[in-house]
Amino acid sequence: MNLNKNYANVNDSYLFSTIAKKVAAYSADHPEKKVLRLGIGDVTLPLAPAVIEALHSAVDEMAKKETFRGYGPEQGYDFLRDSIAAYYKERGVELDGDEIFVSDGAKSDLGNIIDLFSQDNVVLVPDPVYPVYVDTNVMAGRKIIYSDATEANGFLPMPDYSVDADIIYICSPNNPTGAAYTKAQLKEWVDYANKKGAVILYDAAYECFIKDDELAKSIYQVEGAKTCAIEFCSFSKMAGFTGTRCGYTVVPKSITKGGLSANKMWLRRQTTKFNGVPYIVQRAAAAVFTPEGRKQIAENLAYYEENAKLIANTLKELGVWFTGGEHSPYIWLKCPGGMGSWEFFDYLLENAQVVGTPGAGFGVNGEGFFRLTAFGSKEVTKEAMERIKNLLSK
Amino acid sequence: MNLNKNYANVNDSYLFSTIAKKVAAYSADHPEKKVLRLGIGDVTLPLAPAVIEALHSAVDEMAKKETFRGYGPEQGYDFLRDSIAAYYKERGVELDGDEIFVSDGAKSDLGNIIDLFSQDNVVLVPDPVYPVYVDTNVMAGRKIIYSDATEANGFLPMPDYSVDADIIYICSPNNPTGAAYTKAQLKEWVDYANKKGAVILYDAAYECFIKDDELAKSIYQVEGAKTCAIEFCSFSKMAGFTGTRCGYTVVPKSITKGGLSANKMWLRRQTTKFNGVPYIVQRAAAAVFTPEGRKQIAENLAYYEENAKLIANTLKELGVWFTGGEHSPYIWLKCPGGMGSWEFFDYLLENAQVVGTPGAGFGVNGEGFFRLTAFGSKEVTKEAMERIKNLLSK
Repeated sequence: MNLNKNYANVNDSYLFSTIAKKVAAYSADHPEKKVLRLGIGDVTLPLAPAVIEALHSAVDEMAKKETFRGYGPEQGYDFLRDSIAAYYKERGVELDGDEIFVSDGAKSDLGNIIDLFSQDNVVLVPDPVYPVYVDTNVMAGRKIIYSDATEANGFLPMPDYSVDADIIYICSPNNPTGAAYTKAQLKEWVDYANKKGAVILYDAAYECFIKDDELAKSIYQVEGAKTCAIEFCSFSKMAGFTGTRCGYTVVPKSITKGGLSANKMWLRRQTTKFNGVPYIVQRAAAAVFTPEGRKQIAENLAYYEENAKLIANTLKELGVWFTGGEHSPYIWLKCPGGMGSWEFFDYLLENAQVVGTPGAGFGVNGEGFFRLTAFGSKEVTKEAMERIKNLLSK
Repeated sequence: MNLNKNYANVNDSYLFSTIAKKVAAYSADHPEKKVLRLGIGDVTLPLAPAVIEALHSAVDEMAKKETFRGYGPEQGYDFLRDSIAAYYKERGVELDGDEIFVSDGAKSDLGNIIDLFSQDNVVLVPDPVYPVYVDTNVMAGRKIIYSDATEANGFLPMPDYSVDADIIYICSPNNPTGAAYTKAQLKEWVDYANKKGAVILYDAAYECFIKDDELAKSIYQVEGAKTCAIEFCSFSKMAGFTGTRCGYTVVPKSITKGGLSANKMWLRRQTTKFNGVPYIVQRAAAAVFTPEGRKQIAENLAYYEENAKLIANTLKELGVWFTGGEHSPYIWLKCPGGMGSWEFFDYLLENAQVVGTPGAGFGVNGEGFFRLTAFGSKEVTKEAMERIKNLLSK
């Protein structure tokens, strides 16, 4: 037996452990100082009442022989796939039910989908980026090339026809930069992918934060996307499901090559290597789409959006350049005074006791940038902004 | 972009759809006849009260900001990993907590684990077999060889040193044959694997049915297994979690090769491509190990075991050769009168209105054999056995 040597090439990330160590050391030296965390990438509000009610009711079904559910369809129950299809329809996207696959989350599907593509495909990843796109392809031994996301392009790189890519990752609204593509910009990517015969893996996990109709909530709002794009979405940020685990992936039937259908392959992959999402969780996810569910999650999202707006307004006031803050829970700012990412991290921790995430941790182009998030409480966000205002306006 | 051509080599299985069609056609022609199904591979009893209580209580935690849980550790919460470690300890197996990985089920992990091994490894699979072992390796383009499970070896093939295998699948108690290895027999496989430098992927999903101390409930009860075996287990059959989704995989730290550690690689795989099992489901799984949980699941298992015993006794009376029925919910019988698997299927359906699963659907060596399962109700099992007794004793 030999182990997969590609794993030796995966870089260990010390980003969050280094942050934790620095904060612990600072707190030990300054026990009297209250540290405010705006680095958190996880939701903090509880599940919506409609979701809780659906969970309790589904648990009760599991307690009785007559309503107990064993193995379900690997690709998800129709009651949930139908709700997801209706959600797409609201945005003008028509999907067949069997183009929608319910999963335990976008991260799993983004990691597993690459099994569908041959080994020699070249992968194009933006930098800076959510590390999973790179790591999963390093594990598979694929060649990875990068597109530069920079201040100059507003952290929204556009296609370069001199570059030949087979698998293209796009995350919009982006983690970590909060930048979101317009439909017109995405159309350029779709055209590029169709021209090159490439596939776009479109991570829409933050689509729920989009309020502007110019911006795409789904890549299928763009003409031509159904022949080149697979879309990943999740209830994690939309409805606080980070610990409840449910997402969905759309694999259009029109993505084919050499007699193979990506849709049929994904169905085969999921029926062979996956056994579906818990019935109770699927009931919870379906409750998100009920009128009460929609109203309640909109309130939760508004809470985070208020925080994002507060951070964005503070930075505007201070004249700090940033992306995100609107249509995204992330705010990606240029470190003031030409500071490096970690330099600014230390500066903020020591002088304002505010913790964020150094942009350098997300890629080469992240150096000199810094991520704040809107997932904290209103009180903490408010106090953190006051401290930052006091510090940076000196 | 090119799609993974190996997917074109995966055989579509029509086993269960063919069965469904045949039964539907028979019922349409004979609406007055009551068809009894003993082909079912899924549990039918509801979740145990202790599990239901734990689910409700965890759902309530998710409803309040103070107790809400977001992202958890990908490898599972300590409260559950500690319970699993204690369960192993009862059987004399000492595991470190970080050798245990909680997952959404054995099928997922059995499918995903092969990413850890290099492409050129040769895979040894018993025939007949649970189709997932073969299909996942066909998708990855690996060479597969077979070991023959036959009436002569009681459907428990033993190692052949003239065969060089790198990855060895063992399922005990077996699906579909119900046959279970003794510790002494497993020791021979462990010795073979250690000698050849191979890895054993040990599927212990049915260990909860083992009552005899001679038989292995875990491969780690066998000396030397920790340097060559990865074990997969599940709450599916043990506690009726087929629709609730929780399992666990043990990757010992002592499985290493060429400077790589399988344990560290699996941790990296799971943290990169998985986001953990729902918190509420992990609380449900932990409840299985409480004194009340243990008592309640034992009652459920006893129900299925009673059915298995009834089937086994009927076949003994009739002089039909079979494996399983003890230490397993499956009964694998030799079709009487030299009938083929499908021939016997039709014979049983037409003359006794009993549905089982043709052994030929599980591999070449399954031809001439037939699987019955103990997951039906006591009433159905009893009536089916009376009909079979009447038919075969004619």
